[in-house]
Amino acid sequence: MSKMWLMRLVVLAAGLVLWFMPVPEGLQENAWHLFAIFITTIFSIIIGAFPVFVASVLALVTSIFTSTLTTAEAYSGFSKGFILLILVAFLVANAVVKSGLGRRISLIIISFFGKSTLGLGYSMFFTDMLIAPAFPSNTARSGVLYPLTLALARDSGSKVEEGSQKRMGNYLMMNTMAGLSISSTLWLTAMAANPAGAGMAAEMGITITFASWLQASIVPCLVAALVLPYILLKVINPEIKQTPEAPKKAKELLQEMGTISSKEIITGLTFIGMVALWATTSIHHLPKEAIAFTGLAIVMATGIFTEEDMKQQGGALSTFIWFAVLYTLSSFLNKFGFMTWIGDKIAAPLDGMSWPMVYVILIISYVLIHYFFVSQTAQMMALFSVFLAVGIKSGVPGELLAMMLLFATNFFSVITPQGSSANVLAAGSGYLKSSEVYKYGAVITFTNLLIFLTIGTAWIMMVTG
Amino acid sequence: MSKMWLMRLVVLAAGLVLWFMPVPEGLQENAWHLFAIFITTIFSIIIGAFPVFVASVLALVTSIFTSTLTTAEAYSGFSKGFILLILVAFLVANAVVKSGLGRRISLIIISFFGKSTLGLGYSMFFTDMLIAPAFPSNTARSGVLYPLTLALARDSGSKVEEGSQKRMGNYLMMNTMAGLSISSTLWLTAMAANPAGAGMAAEMGITITFASWLQASIVPCLVAALVLPYILLKVINPEIKQTPEAPKKAKELLQEMGTISSKEIITGLTFIGMVALWATTSIHHLPKEAIAFTGLAIVMATGIFTEEDMKQQGGALSTFIWFAVLYTLSSFLNKFGFMTWIGDKIAAPLDGMSWPMVYVILIISYVLIHYFFVSQTAQMMALFSVFLAVGIKSGVPGELLAMMLLFATNFFSVITPQGSSANVLAAGSGYLKSSEVYKYGAVITFTNLLIFLTIGTAWIMMVTG
Repeated sequence: MSKMWLMRLVVLAAGLVLWFMPVPEGLQENAWHLFAIFITTIFSIIIGAFPVFVASVLALVTSIFTSTLTTAEAYSGFSKGFILLILVAFLVANAVVKSGLGRRISLIIISFFGKSTLGLGYSMFFTDMLIAPAFPSNTARSGVLYPLTLALARDSGSKVEEGSQKRMGNYLMMNTMAGLSISSTLWLTAMAANPAGAGMAAEMGITITFASWLQASIVPCLVAALVLPYILLKVINPEIKQTPEAPKKAKELLQEMGTISSKEIITGLTFIGMVALWATTSIHHLPKEAIAFTGLAIVMATGIFTEEDMKQQGGALSTFIWFAVLYTLSSFLNKFGFMTWIGDKIAAPLDGMSWPMVYVILIISYVLIHYFFVSQTAQMMALFSVFLAVGIKSGVPGELLAMMLLFATNFFSVITPQGSSANVLAAGSGYLKSSEVYKYGAVITFTNLLIFLTIGTAWIMMVTG
Repeated sequence: MSKMWLMRLVVLAAGLVLWFMPVPEGLQENAWHLFAIFITTIFSIIIGAFPVFVASVLALVTSIFTSTLTTAEAYSGFSKGFILLILVAFLVANAVVKSGLGRRISLIIISFFGKSTLGLGYSMFFTDMLIAPAFPSNTARSGVLYPLTLALARDSGSKVEEGSQKRMGNYLMMNTMAGLSISSTLWLTAMAANPAGAGMAAEMGITITFASWLQASIVPCLVAALVLPYILLKVINPEIKQTPEAPKKAKELLQEMGTISSKEIITGLTFIGMVALWATTSIHHLPKEAIAFTGLAIVMATGIFTEEDMKQQGGALSTFIWFAVLYTLSSFLNKFGFMTWIGDKIAAPLDGMSWPMVYVILIISYVLIHYFFVSQTAQMMALFSVFLAVGIKSGVPGELLAMMLLFATNFFSVITPQGSSANVLAAGSGYLKSSEVYKYGAVITFTNLLIFLTIGTAWIMMVTG
C-alpha cells in the first residue's frame, strides 16, 4: 500500500512538472496541457500506480476541471459508433460461449490441431488471415475471433475465475491479438484505415491497388505468421504446451455434446448474419454497431444471453469507459495540433541524411509514436502524409515508404493494450494483466518491425522495382 | 414461451399498423415514424413482451435502420452529462454499502424510527424534503438517497440476491421514488427545470419567486408526504410491517460494528464533498457528472470499491443503455415537433369551455402525456408555454396554472420508471419489476394529481389571491 502511494506521488509530481513547463514553441497551451494529462495517465498505467479504469477516469476529470476539454468534447467518445461496436461485440460474444457453440467449434479445432498449444496458435492465426479480406473492420473481426479464443482457452482448462490464466489462455489471447495485427496488414480491405491511406497516397501520386498491396504484404506477413506464434510460445511460456491426448479427448467430448442444439443454431445464424452484413457494408451502408446491437437483441430475445447474464458484464462497462476516455484524449491531442507538431519535430533533423537512414528513422519513429495513440486510424490520418512527404523529399522511394507506413499502421497495433480497438476484447478478457500486454505487445511489435524492415523492405523493393 | 411470442407478434403488428398509417396533417413523416417506434416500445415494455433493455435496443436499431434517426442522433444520449451522472451515481453508491457506512447510517435511522416499516417510510420522505433545497438536481439527490434506501432494505433482511424483495425493499424503493416526486415539487431550487419554468412564466408576465413557490407548494406537499407512505404501504403490502424489536436490535448491531472505520470516513467525506460541490454548482460551475466521476475515482483508488466489484456492475451498464436510448427517442420526438403538434391537438377543442373545466383538462392531459416523455425537463420545455397560453386564453388564472403545471412537472415523475432520471437508481435496483413500477407509479401519480387538483388548487387560489 505504501509503495503504491509513493508511485502515485511520483505520477502526480511528474504530471505537475509537465503541466507547468513552459509550453514549447509552435504549440497551443491546451495541446501541451492535454499532452501532460495523457502521458501522465499512460505512465501511471505502465508503472501500475492506477488500474487503467481509475487512471482514465482521473484523466477525464482532470481534463474537464482544468478546462482543457469541454464536457461535450470529453464525453464524445461514449457516443462514437466504433466504440459502441466494441461494447456490443463484448456483450454478444457471450452468446457464443453460453449457447455451447463456441465449445463445439473449439472442440472441432482441437480435434484437428490440438496436439500442441503451438498448433492451436497457428490454427487461429491462419483462420484470421483467411477471413480478413471480407472484414473491413478489424474491430468487428476481433468480435468473431474473441469468443472462439475464449472457448478454446476454457476448454483447455484455462479459466479466469479459477485463476488458471497461465495454463494456456494468456498465450491464446496474446496470439489472437498478434494475429489481428498481421491479418490487417495482409489485405487492403482488412482494416478501415487501409483504403483511406491508399487514397491519401494517390493524392501524392502513388497508386496502391488491392493486388499491389497483397503482392507487397504477402511475404513479410507469411514470415510473421510463421514466426510469431512460436516466439510468443517461448516468451509467454504457458504451463501447457503438449497435449497429445487432446484431439482424442475432444472427439469424445464432441460425441457427448450430441447433435447441435437450437440455441447453438440461433447463435450461429446470428453470427453468420452479422458477419455477412459487416462484410457487405460498402453495399448497404448499415452501421456496424447497429448490426451488432441487432445481434445482441436477437440472442437476448431468444433467451440465450439473459438479463441475469447481463448483470455480470460490469467488465464490459469498465472497458467501454476507459477506452472511450483514452480514445477521446488521443483524438483531441491530434485535433489540437500536437501530433502534427511532433511530426514536424521528427522531420526537421533529417534534412541532409541518406535516404535509407531517413527511411529507417521514419519507420521506427512512426511505430514508437504509437505508444501515444489510441487509434490506428487517427495516427495514420495525423502523420502518414507528413512522414511520406518528409521521406520523399529526402529521396526515399515513395511506393516503398507509403506501403511500409500503411503496413506499420497495422503491425504496430499491439504496442499497447489500447493501441487498437481490435485488442480490447482479448486485452480485457482477464487472461492478461495490462503490464503483460505491454510486455508481450512490445515483443510482437518489434518482431514485426524487424521482419518488415529487413525481409519486408527487400521484398517490397523487389516487387515495386 | 408461446404466449410471449404471441405478445411479440401483437407488438410487431401494432408497430407496423402505426408506421404505415397515413401521417397526420401538420406532422413530418419522421416525427410520426419516431412516434410509432417509441409508442410501440413503451407498449412492449408495459405488456412485458420484452424486458426494457431488449425493447430499447430494438427501438434503437429500428430507428437507425429506417433512417428515422442518424447514428449521431441515435447515440447522442450516451454522451449526455446527466445520463453519465446517473451511471456514475449508480457505481459510486456501491461504496456507501461496501464501506459499511450505509449500514451504520441505516442502523441509526432504524434505532430511532424503526418500530414500523411505515416509520422508515416517513423518515426517508422527510429527510429528502429537508435536504432538497440544496440540491438543484433531483438526479443527484437520488444518488444520495438510493444507497441509504438500499442499506435500509438490506439491514431489514430484504435482499435481491436472496429473492426477498417483497419483505420490505420493494416498499422502501417505491417510497423513495415517491419522496423524490414531492421533494422536487416543494422547492424552487430542488429540480433543474423549476427555475427554467419560472423564467418562462416571467416572460408571460407571471412572477414566481423562491418564497411564492414555497408558499403555494407547502400545503399540498405536506398532505402528499403524510398520505403517500401510508397509501403505498397498503397497496404494496410488504411482508414486514411491524418491527417492534428493530430499534433495540439496531442499537446492539451498532455496538457490534464498533467505532467508525477509515473506509467509512473516506466514503463519508467523499459523499459530503460531492454533495457540497453539487449544491454549489451555481458558484463554481463544475459539471455534476465530473464531480461524481471524481468521487468514483477516490473510492476506487482507496480500494473501497474495487475493479473486482466493478465486474458485478452489468446492471449499471444495462440501465445506462436503455435510459440513454429512451431519453434520446423522446427528445427527438420533441425536436421533430411531435410534442408541439400533440399540444395543439389538445388545445384546439377547449375553445369556449369554462375556465375551471379547461384548467382540469389541461392539468390531467399534461400529467397523462408524461407516459410518453422520458425527461421531465423536455416535457416542460415542450409543453409548458403552449398549455399556459391556451389556459390563459380560456380565462384560467395565470399564476394558478403556471404553478400547477410546474408542480405537475415534478409530481408526475413516477408515472413510468423512465419518467424521471431520479427514478432510475431505485427502479433499477432489482427490488421492483418494471410492471410493478408502472402500477405503483400510477397510484402515486394519481394520488398526487388528486391532492393537487383539490386541496392544492384551493390553497394556491387562496395564497395567490
